[in-house]
Amino acid sequence: MTELLNARPRIVVVGAGFGGLTAAKRLAPADVDVTLVDRRNYHLFQPLLYQVATADLSPAEIAWPIRSIFTHDRNVTVILGEVTAIDTAARQVVTDAKRYPYDFLILATGSSNFYFGHDEWEPLAPGLKRIIDATEIRKRILVAFERAEIADDPAEQRRQLNFIIVGGGPTGVEMAGAIAELARVALAKDFRRIDPKAARIMLIEAGDRLLPALAPELSAYAHRALERLGVEVVLRHPVQDINTRGAKVGDDFIPAATIIWAAGVIVTGVGDWLGVETDRGGRVAIAPDLSVPGHPEIFVIGDAARVPWTGEQLVPGLAPAAKQAGAYVADVIRARIEKRPAPAPFRYRHVGNLATIGRNAAVVDLGWLRLKGWLGWWFWGLIHIYFLISVRAATLVMLQWFWTYLTRKKGARLVTGLRPLFPDRSDKRKA
Amino acid sequence: MTELLNARPRIVVVGAGFGGLTAAKRLAPADVDVTLVDRRNYHLFQPLLYQVATADLSPAEIAWPIRSIFTHDRNVTVILGEVTAIDTAARQVVTDAKRYPYDFLILATGSSNFYFGHDEWEPLAPGLKRIIDATEIRKRILVAFERAEIADDPAEQRRQLNFIIVGGGPTGVEMAGAIAELARVALAKDFRRIDPKAARIMLIEAGDRLLPALAPELSAYAHRALERLGVEVVLRHPVQDINTRGAKVGDDFIPAATIIWAAGVIVTGVGDWLGVETDRGGRVAIAPDLSVPGHPEIFVIGDAARVPWTGEQLVPGLAPAAKQAGAYVADVIRARIEKRPAPAPFRYRHVGNLATIGRNAAVVDLGWLRLKGWLGWWFWGLIHIYFLISVRAATLVMLQWFWTYLTRKKGARLVTGLRPLFPDRSDKRKA
Repeated sequence: MTELLNARPRIVVVGAGFGGLTAAKRLAPADVDVTLVDRRNYHLFQPLLYQVATADLSPAEIAWPIRSIFTHDRNVTVILGEVTAIDTAARQVVTDAKRYPYDFLILATGSSNFYFGHDEWEPLAPGLKRIIDATEIRKRILVAFERAEIADDPAEQRRQLNFIIVGGGPTGVEMAGAIAELARVALAKDFRRIDPKAARIMLIEAGDRLLPALAPELSAYAHRALERLGVEVVLRHPVQDINTRGAKVGDDFIPAATIIWAAGVIVTGVGDWLGVETDRGGRVAIAPDLSVPGHPEIFVIGDAARVPWTGEQLVPGLAPAAKQAGAYVADVIRARIEKRPAPAPFRYRHVGNLATIGRNAAVVDLGWLRLKGWLGWWFWGLIHIYFLISVRAATLVMLQWFWTYLTRKKGARLVTGLRPLFPDRSDKRKA
Repeated sequence: MTELLNARPRIVVVGAGFGGLTAAKRLAPADVDVTLVDRRNYHLFQPLLYQVATADLSPAEIAWPIRSIFTHDRNVTVILGEVTAIDTAARQVVTDAKRYPYDFLILATGSSNFYFGHDEWEPLAPGLKRIIDATEIRKRILVAFERAEIADDPAEQRRQLNFIIVGGGPTGVEMAGAIAELARVALAKDFRRIDPKAARIMLIEAGDRLLPALAPELSAYAHRALERLGVEVVLRHPVQDINTRGAKVGDDFIPAATIIWAAGVIVTGVGDWLGVETDRGGRVAIAPDLSVPGHPEIFVIGDAARVPWTGEQLVPGLAPAAKQAGAYVADVIRARIEKRPAPAPFRYRHVGNLATIGRNAAVVDLGWLRLKGWLGWWFWGLIHIYFLISVRAATLVMLQWFWTYLTRKKGARLVTGLRPLFPDRSDKRKA
């Protein structure tokens, strides 16, 4: 329980997402001390988070204790803590509990939901970033059906059965499809006074097509597939306002009890901690080796970094991009410590984009290969199973999916938390 | 979406635990309308709840949406709502949302934790009744190890690694054993500055033996088995006080960051709703057919009912007892509706008591059969799997257990919730 006196290079990694985890794992075999700081005790497999929100999976099936990932890497210390500042002069990471000195620092803190300057929309339209977001969204979706079942006012019943998803990227498309399947299949026969199939699910996108990162033909397919599931897709209509009753889309006010945000992300923290300029998305500009200009010992990777790609495009905020950057900076640091030549500047290798819509329907765009329908769906499933971090998780997720595929039921339809039913009731009483 | 005019007998069941669920299922085939009201949307398999608290299982593996249990029982309506009163004159159940008229009423509301008049201990020493209790306890256990890892003050580090479980019944025994295994096996190699095996786990019981409902030889075995796991068992010492720093046990104050309550239950609600006398445990005295004296149309079953058994003993608050009572009152009601002779008075058939201590160690007392050690452990596991309500759940739980058995790892080591790490930090800042 004493600190060992230590002359080995100390590397602090902040954030145990795809980027930070990859960097720490790749540094572990070197003769260094790694400290991995995260404000959660788990690594989250974010691509499947929407399935927690739609009652397909349980949180523990897509999250792993960070400690258990590094059990056998004795030179990696995992710290549960929230970073509040970085003392670049003293080379220390400041957390709410204590300070951690570093020789090299990797910032992999990811992004959070961005409400285009309307932060007041956040409680009204939760996004999908953390596990508690997913369980909160799951609660809202399931409670909306419960309230519709007991509502006597037809307008209120209608409002409870209206679901608005803001943003037509992969998360929005996947949420819309999964909610439609939940309403039309899994819940279909479980209510007595309402017909869950009458639920209205609206996917609102400000741009002129869904999934802009994919080929137009795949966008069109996704659009048709969602409509076949009963989703109303609204293009070229930004959301103007959100309140407790619903959302204003273009000139129309749509009453809706459940609104889900999938429209944009922003980076917070890193720019302030380092005292450097950021772009409008909060991303930090970095040198070709992903270090911060003026601070060759500090690296920024993943969503938090502004990395040019092709033309005007930036490297996208995808798991493979974060992993590639994590591996790259680990190599840069090891080369410097071992006094080897620095690797060539970072180059992002784009793997592809994919999104699932529903049973037997997904789109996959690898550039050289485009898949849709059931072939895309199986490809999507296999890829996600393959990248799940443990055999246990992969087995559980496969079993859940297999079961859902056979029975069309959902396994995680739980509303937890004390008095979850009528969160806005107390407001009404006050009013 | 309109109420059907209805001349069939209306039966309202309050509570979807073992008793209420059994009653509703048994009434469903009859020519009646059943309304099942619960403030949660799930039925919880409470005997395995402690495994959620100790990171073995996920909530969804031991909880099922009540609706899905009654999908094919079209005359059963499930209502998510909190009962606030019962209007016995008008024969209506009053919930926070609306009123439900009944011809017969079954109250199966269960019990909550009882702190012997010290309600202020509840937030300091959560009990194990609901899913949020279990996830809260899981959070406290896991966060205690995290805080110990970053603590610089040896006394504080020590305090974080002290765990007190109050109450030596089955829940207390199972919690103590599971926490010991968590510390000594699953977490053993995951920390760098602390040795989780040094955690001190104390099981405090006011009486003179553990598991008083089982044969003394099994109590003695459980005692020895817990000590082998490293649990300190303290008998004949009631807990005198609990505060944010620890607990006073006998004359000693034991600093401890995590205190878990497994010492007593109380019934609330039913007595007040009906305006009848209750015993000190809040239980309602009932007639031999489990109806409320003066209200032959109202039945109380499960923990909430005071049912004599043998000698001075009452029917215990166990799942089989609640299920038997649920089936019995369903038969009484059907006999009355169908104008058949009433069944003989309720008679409880005791099945047995059992508790698991740890890997290959459990005690089973069926009266005619007593098991301990690995035989008891396998028996315990098979019984619990057998009674899990769905094949999906049974498969998932078996898979989790199998995995844990092989790898000795725990699958659900998640701390969720915003800023879960330092709940008492804000208090300190204020102080």
